[in-house]
Amino acid sequence: MELINGNAIAQTVLDELKAEVEKIAASGLVPHIVVLRVGNDPASISYVNKKEKTAQSIGMRSSVRLFPETISQAELENEIDALNADKSVHGILIQSPLPAHINETEIFNRVLPEKDVDGFSTANIGRLVQELPDAFAACTPAGILELLERSGVATAGKHAVIVGRSQIVGKPVSQLLLSRKSNATVTICHSHTEDLAAVTRQADILIAAIGRPQFITRDMVKPGAVVIDVGINRVPDATKKSGFRLVGDVDFENVAPICEKITPVPGGVGPMTVAMLMKNTLAACLRQNPAR
Amino acid sequence: MELINGNAIAQTVLDELKAEVEKIAASGLVPHIVVLRVGNDPASISYVNKKEKTAQSIGMRSSVRLFPETISQAELENEIDALNADKSVHGILIQSPLPAHINETEIFNRVLPEKDVDGFSTANIGRLVQELPDAFAACTPAGILELLERSGVATAGKHAVIVGRSQIVGKPVSQLLLSRKSNATVTICHSHTEDLAAVTRQADILIAAIGRPQFITRDMVKPGAVVIDVGINRVPDATKKSGFRLVGDVDFENVAPICEKITPVPGGVGPMTVAMLMKNTLAACLRQNPAR
Repeated sequence: MELINGNAIAQTVLDELKAEVEKIAASGLVPHIVVLRVGNDPASISYVNKKEKTAQSIGMRSSVRLFPETISQAELENEIDALNADKSVHGILIQSPLPAHINETEIFNRVLPEKDVDGFSTANIGRLVQELPDAFAACTPAGILELLERSGVATAGKHAVIVGRSQIVGKPVSQLLLSRKSNATVTICHSHTEDLAAVTRQADILIAAIGRPQFITRDMVKPGAVVIDVGINRVPDATKKSGFRLVGDVDFENVAPICEKITPVPGGVGPMTVAMLMKNTLAACLRQNPAR
Repeated sequence: MELINGNAIAQTVLDELKAEVEKIAASGLVPHIVVLRVGNDPASISYVNKKEKTAQSIGMRSSVRLFPETISQAELENEIDALNADKSVHGILIQSPLPAHINETEIFNRVLPEKDVDGFSTANIGRLVQELPDAFAACTPAGILELLERSGVATAGKHAVIVGRSQIVGKPVSQLLLSRKSNATVTICHSHTEDLAAVTRQADILIAAIGRPQFITRDMVKPGAVVIDVGINRVPDATKKSGFRLVGDVDFENVAPICEKITPVPGGVGPMTVAMLMKNTLAACLRQNPAR
């Protein structure tokens, strides 16, 4: 069994991006991402800080715009319009969740597709399915593909089974694996799947993205499979100062021994998401400035 | 074994649409589809004629615009822009194939999503994945779902295996089957799939959309499966006046006896495609005229 070290792979990606950012800095171009945060959700604050720090660590410019919970749909759209028009801004990310009175789909779609580095807009989802070269894939799915590639996991002809059909992980990762670049056979399972274990046991590559702690047990995994655990669940743990610990969607302790490779939680898929956001932002910057 | 009669089901759909068209005619509203045809491809001429006849048979308005092979990208885009702006036009369809000098993706994306009754635009593909209510699904995949539903085939929890990952059938039908309306477990296979027969034999619902005559043989099908054959292939046949006959992607003669239900070719999926185009056009008309 080999552990897929997401922290190390993400750092390698970031080091490569830093070198590219330095190279283009010579022409006076600095990739710039703007993150919009609405309200004071503690998790959102922490995510946004992480994104800002990472951007700065590789020489990118990062700005955060803060708005009160009470901001209206129209006001938020106006802010996005201004950033769309601002040529110094290459990537725009709207941190979710947004307040209940805001239409999230419309907000994500307000961002110009070429600045939608989060890949959540309808346009980028369509482009991903169409395998268009200007598609931005959502960062977690893109990070999963990057993890597989950099761990030497071949996907062509392999059977990838994805558990979970969410818009932000299950569906886009299925499209990436199915593409003419990856050429995997792809199965998508979910809460309605009959005899789930019989399906997951066929996976050469098993991707768990359900959001249920330790849901994937040893009997659901084929010996020698590659297992990617996208879940980040808090479970109560009295031995921890915080009162909880983080576990994935996979029963790691019992599944890991029979895998060829597996991602841990934390330190697996998680760190890749932010790295891929930076990669998308650099790509956006380069596409918006073709004639350097 | 039960034959799924696509001709009869398509006619039922058309009869229902005709009744709805008559109902809204009272308010002076007539659904109007415009088909753009470039050049003189014989198959395109026949498809376009079929669409026009069908529209007229249910009381819809249909117009055909013909353009020479030599039309430029910009000229074709101007024509589409004019139709987008014309409030009397509810649906716009660009008959493919287009000449090689035309960028087909850009042409399909020029059509306003709300008039894109063919469902080929990036916006509608994205909306389909996002399961947004205003998505127009491509007509063949939508026709497959309609066939299943009207034949009493339950999809929830069933394992649907799709052979073929094309943009016009395999990918969109996978999204429809995976949706929270259908709730099927979905596997997509293609030319790179290893041990294809082992995968297809798991299908409760098998959808063949490869474009290879009689590719799906009896050993690839589980007894009791529902088989949907999307292929329409010409094979030489000296006994026919035309010199060829039409066969599907399924070896019908040998597969049919072990199926619960199966579509024939011709007379299965084919007739549904035009019926769904009419259904999309009526829906487009109603959405564009909410306040009748």
